[in-house]
Amino acid sequence: VGSGFPDRRATIPHRTRTPPRRGGPRAKVPWRKPHVHRIACSALLCLTAIAHAQPAPETDAIAAALRDQALAGSGAYAIVESLTTEVGPRLAGTEADARAVEWAKRRFAALGYDRVVLQPVSFPTWVRGHERAEVLSPAPQPLHLTTLGGSVGTDGPLEAEVVAFADLDALKAADPAQVQGRIAFVAKRMRRARDGRGYGEAVGARGNGAVEAARKGAVAVLIRSIGTDSDRMPHTGLMRYEDGVAQIPAAALSNPDADQLIRLLERGPVRLRLDLGATRGPDHTSYNVIGEIAGSTHPDEVVVIGGHLDSWDLGTGAIDDAAGIGITMAAGALIGKLETRPKRTIRVIAFANEEQGLIGGFAYASDQGEALKRHMIGAESDFGAGRIY
Amino acid sequence: VGSGFPDRRATIPHRTRTPPRRGGPRAKVPWRKPHVHRIACSALLCLTAIAHAQPAPETDAIAAALRDQALAGSGAYAIVESLTTEVGPRLAGTEADARAVEWAKRRFAALGYDRVVLQPVSFPTWVRGHERAEVLSPAPQPLHLTTLGGSVGTDGPLEAEVVAFADLDALKAADPAQVQGRIAFVAKRMRRARDGRGYGEAVGARGNGAVEAARKGAVAVLIRSIGTDSDRMPHTGLMRYEDGVAQIPAAALSNPDADQLIRLLERGPVRLRLDLGATRGPDHTSYNVIGEIAGSTHPDEVVVIGGHLDSWDLGTGAIDDAAGIGITMAAGALIGKLETRPKRTIRVIAFANEEQGLIGGFAYASDQGEALKRHMIGAESDFGAGRIY
Repeated sequence: VGSGFPDRRATIPHRTRTPPRRGGPRAKVPWRKPHVHRIACSALLCLTAIAHAQPAPETDAIAAALRDQALAGSGAYAIVESLTTEVGPRLAGTEADARAVEWAKRRFAALGYDRVVLQPVSFPTWVRGHERAEVLSPAPQPLHLTTLGGSVGTDGPLEAEVVAFADLDALKAADPAQVQGRIAFVAKRMRRARDGRGYGEAVGARGNGAVEAARKGAVAVLIRSIGTDSDRMPHTGLMRYEDGVAQIPAAALSNPDADQLIRLLERGPVRLRLDLGATRGPDHTSYNVIGEIAGSTHPDEVVVIGGHLDSWDLGTGAIDDAAGIGITMAAGALIGKLETRPKRTIRVIAFANEEQGLIGGFAYASDQGEALKRHMIGAESDFGAGRIY
Repeated sequence: VGSGFPDRRATIPHRTRTPPRRGGPRAKVPWRKPHVHRIACSALLCLTAIAHAQPAPETDAIAAALRDQALAGSGAYAIVESLTTEVGPRLAGTEADARAVEWAKRRFAALGYDRVVLQPVSFPTWVRGHERAEVLSPAPQPLHLTTLGGSVGTDGPLEAEVVAFADLDALKAADPAQVQGRIAFVAKRMRRARDGRGYGEAVGARGNGAVEAARKGAVAVLIRSIGTDSDRMPHTGLMRYEDGVAQIPAAALSNPDADQLIRLLERGPVRLRLDLGATRGPDHTSYNVIGEIAGSTHPDEVVVIGGHLDSWDLGTGAIDDAAGIGITMAAGALIGKLETRPKRTIRVIAFANEEQGLIGGFAYASDQGEALKRHMIGAESDFGAGRIY
């Protein structure tokens, strides 16, 4: 990887950086996805304000033409279709992740970017392994769940009774005697909201459920899948551990399976068997893949847009985040084909390993150092490509 | 099973009957589900015609009151909720099937039926085992599929190239040289139709795909899941073999996975690995569970309604067919509580093993012998409980 681009890699420092972490793959995530989105929007508003302060009618006309051209067909869908089909799921650190890097390198080149840079990003890997759950009593039946990213496995089948809580606060307030030796189940349902705010309201149980449950003596934690769907495909995502608190397995039940567990609990005690094969793998080096359109008058001033190249492994990563890759790669390519070059450099970044802790983003920011001050805007697209309602 | 009911089992002969079969669990299915539905509707129209020919105003008034009472709340949902929760999935021949029989016996009794009869029904069992599929080339990734009921397994991982056909006719017309040694994929998509007719149009590939593919020398057959959904949960159902034709494994890809396979095939040859652990189990005896409301003036004349007690194993069998059980059990119970007894006997049957070849239905019909002539109507509810569009 990186061969053929040696002379082009000099402008971006290549120090590999693993972000500070405690316990899990990453302990602190200062901004979560909805916040990233809001930050990007705020930055866009600032840029608009600057633009308004410095009227440039010819720039406005170019922007309008660009917008109209993109809305008429930018090629973004073809990028999404290609990535999700020719690579498919691409969990960070897997062979598919490496294929995605090669794919992005080729695609940037084919789209006519001025140069393509691969920035190494190292991180510990997480391997899902098998995942099975079943009700042992009162009514034996399988439950559909998925292990949360970063979770430890059960080290063989784990059998225990379930204790349910309405939400994370109820778990925090619980008497440890209720939880000790049991599987804690946080039943909170994600609220369907036009602006997606239900995600932020519910996701705390995913990130912190294992730590809070372990503090009370639980042997595992189950959450209701963070999603408003009604099929038996649970939604995965990152969880975290904390120093000094036992690391217990964490998994998400699909919405119908969470409903089934609640119906069973309404009838009396429920005993489950969990068998989760999750493990930590060796450290791995992947790459931020960066396509650049060189600026004409201020090439050292940079506009960054991008999406994340990795995905979780349960789907083909169309929304997670091929959509963001397609949107930003295609936008950059259209700008690159303009008769009038942009004054500043456009850098489109296909970020490495966003899902396990924004690791590619942190690596990029850290490696830029002082050059960050010459970044005019940084915006990520990671909210899909359609209306969210 | 059947203890406590010895004196009540005398009126229905208990000869255990396995329907004639060749190759698979059942070779000939003379009527498929949509047809059953149509037959039931036709029979209902006949009954209405008879009622019109013999006006009975007081009966009409009772029927109207009964209808209004049922629409106001029949208790059917509570039956569905109980069966799907307290038993859950109940594949014929499993421990859960036996629990479902006990459940039905208790439920009929609790609903005040005059008597409850268990009629033994024997059949060969089918065990799903594990099921895994993955693209080996050009883009390694897992595919979601499910083995079709009655299929053999792959006897270890099976690796072969895919050859796709638009529908079953295209497979039948294929040059065997194209198919030999390959996995045949029938891509036909079920059409969404208000009356559900798309099911009948598409389901031929499920029943006959393995035989037709094997005739051409295929090593396995894949079909697109028979359903109009867009999630990665494939729909299962029965397939069949034929004497003198090799028995090859058969499985259904979920709709999105079938789409993914087509996208991959558009790019060139696709090689898959299938690993299906399906096996045949030992023969098993389950039961038709029959609740009766005795007729007042013509107790030997019988009206049969019912649903099937078994389900496939991939869900909790709410539509498959707890809905039919709930509708008919609750209807019978309401009739049983009328001040005026029905003239004829109402027999509500929770049929054993419908899914693997209408086995409980055939056993009932066979065991009735001459008494079938005194059946006024036989109607099954197996189309869910809501609008189908």
